[in-house]
Amino acid sequence: MFTLIKEDKETKARLGLFETYHGKLQTPSFFPVATQGAVKGLSPKELEEIGIDGLLVNAYHVHMRPGVSVIKACGGLHKFMGFPKTIITDSGGYQIFSLENFRKVTDSGVTFRSHIDGKEFFLSPESMVEIQQELGTDVVVPLDECVKYPSSYADAAVAAKRTIDWAAKAKSYYDKDTSGKFLFFAIIQGSVYPDLRKFCLEEVLKLNIDGACIGGLSVGEPKELRYNMLSLINSALDKNYIRYFMGYGLPEDILEAVSEGIDLFDCVVPTRLGRTGTVFTRGGKIVVRNAPYAKDNTPLDETCPCYVCRNFSRAYLRHLLNVNEVLSVQLLSYHNIFWYKQFMDKIREAITAERFSQFKKDFLSNYKEK
Amino acid sequence: MFTLIKEDKETKARLGLFETYHGKLQTPSFFPVATQGAVKGLSPKELEEIGIDGLLVNAYHVHMRPGVSVIKACGGLHKFMGFPKTIITDSGGYQIFSLENFRKVTDSGVTFRSHIDGKEFFLSPESMVEIQQELGTDVVVPLDECVKYPSSYADAAVAAKRTIDWAAKAKSYYDKDTSGKFLFFAIIQGSVYPDLRKFCLEEVLKLNIDGACIGGLSVGEPKELRYNMLSLINSALDKNYIRYFMGYGLPEDILEAVSEGIDLFDCVVPTRLGRTGTVFTRGGKIVVRNAPYAKDNTPLDETCPCYVCRNFSRAYLRHLLNVNEVLSVQLLSYHNIFWYKQFMDKIREAITAERFSQFKKDFLSNYKEK
Repeated sequence: MFTLIKEDKETKARLGLFETYHGKLQTPSFFPVATQGAVKGLSPKELEEIGIDGLLVNAYHVHMRPGVSVIKACGGLHKFMGFPKTIITDSGGYQIFSLENFRKVTDSGVTFRSHIDGKEFFLSPESMVEIQQELGTDVVVPLDECVKYPSSYADAAVAAKRTIDWAAKAKSYYDKDTSGKFLFFAIIQGSVYPDLRKFCLEEVLKLNIDGACIGGLSVGEPKELRYNMLSLINSALDKNYIRYFMGYGLPEDILEAVSEGIDLFDCVVPTRLGRTGTVFTRGGKIVVRNAPYAKDNTPLDETCPCYVCRNFSRAYLRHLLNVNEVLSVQLLSYHNIFWYKQFMDKIREAITAERFSQFKKDFLSNYKEK
Repeated sequence: MFTLIKEDKETKARLGLFETYHGKLQTPSFFPVATQGAVKGLSPKELEEIGIDGLLVNAYHVHMRPGVSVIKACGGLHKFMGFPKTIITDSGGYQIFSLENFRKVTDSGVTFRSHIDGKEFFLSPESMVEIQQELGTDVVVPLDECVKYPSSYADAAVAAKRTIDWAAKAKSYYDKDTSGKFLFFAIIQGSVYPDLRKFCLEEVLKLNIDGACIGGLSVGEPKELRYNMLSLINSALDKNYIRYFMGYGLPEDILEAVSEGIDLFDCVVPTRLGRTGTVFTRGGKIVVRNAPYAKDNTPLDETCPCYVCRNFSRAYLRHLLNVNEVLSVQLLSYHNIFWYKQFMDKIREAITAERFSQFKKDFLSNYKEK
């Protein structure tokens, strides 16, 4: 499951090895997002070429379309998607509570209308585990209740308590399976309230979980509060648990969170920004759609060894964006995911060589908003 | 340029070798279309993997966006696009005359409004050659006037005459270049009127051209008339000229045109149909978007060795289409282009083995509309 390999001396950064039924990977690691069963703009072959070890799939979305029965008929999520490595399925609590079609939450689960056809659905903590197991996930993530920022203490407390109750119900259901194929992570909620976060943490640890997900952050709160929460959680958490910061982040955010002891990330940022024309480079993000790149015959990032940087100019990529060629989505997403992969590799190399603080400093001094 | 290798005994099918400044390829061959400088949904790396020897780019489109100066600044079309093999540039006469923004045609050229910003442009036969040379094409195709079907004899005669005059002007301009980098094809127009087609053919042959393009067919005329024209042209044309049927066709059409002696094809069909959910298989086209494929765990075509058929089910591809994942465009276009490539390979193998008629018969007996 998770083995802690090394701890940084100057920060709380760590190196680890995470093992699931579908493979081993080194942490800190970044998982691209395949919300609906595909990474936008990248084939599994390209993900393999880049060296991607794991993906996040949204169980709520694939439950809605194409449905668990289709995926089961095709041999489970890995075979269906043609991706043989680790897949974590997020339950989709965040999506369900964010959607306009959210209807009602009770202690036994959540009622909502499908975002596709308006049909009413009910999901319980138990059924969300069953769905993920039938999908053939590597990591079950229970249904949770995520509150907005800001939320009152009272609202955050109710949601935190419910998240814990649901995690316990989910774990009981999960424990019936003895295949050994699935890991179980629990989500820590509690908004920006230290005692709620601590309460959640203590309660989920009683459940004999395989990893801790940090949810309900990066939802609009000031960065200082965010990192206070991370620090609090990671200080209180036994160091042998893998720590997964869900839905985070930009390169500078990842560096900060790694410094606080986070092991795993997922985020739509590299693909979403890529397909709209913003790319990551050593010198910061650039909007390659912009006019200054019209005749720029240089690669996106001179220091990047990816297929796109070795073969295409900014001018060509800008042209593809301007004329709405689908190849722009493919090439810019490829570069961004490759760039993130290399970035995580460099973070691990720096921790290994005991120069993570220096790496972070050097990286940030080059990396500017343009 | 073009070397005739073998002629079929039962049909007019031929094997040939076509050589340009950027490579050699065997004919009959099919060129995918990269209208705006990219094949929709496929990277140059994927085109290479599939074994694509050549592309058709639309000079009118890339002249409008990003403009010749951008492409020149990036080292010409091959470097700009990252495609090192043969590129034919169509002048875009067909597009200009089809567009609503077409304004006026005179003997010296055509005035039209850009389809992007409405700005007025004038293109002459000479400037169209210059544009294509500056792009760094392998094959210059002169500006022509294409008439609709049906057209009166008088209208078709005016357009045919003008096409010939423009071809002569284009050739005079072209002849000033002594780099040896560019070939020159001429377009044969004349609608469905045998004497106009014959007139065009005789006139362009006086220009010392490198190949003959057949234009103005597959614009709505009955198939019988189309093949009569092909037969007439190819019978009258010295067998050492390469024969390029522009903007054609479906697999069954290609078989028929090859039987009439056509060497080269381009068509948007495999990419256009692919991205909207229709794929080519040994048994005919299938619309994988349709409900019967919802739980179909078989590949698009059991006999196809492409990446998509080896790794993904119809059910997965249908799901991607249903949820508008860009990966559907990528994978379905890949399969269709791969399938076309293999189809052309099989045609050449059959001609080589002197069993082309049998191949055609067998293929058509399996290939049904579904």
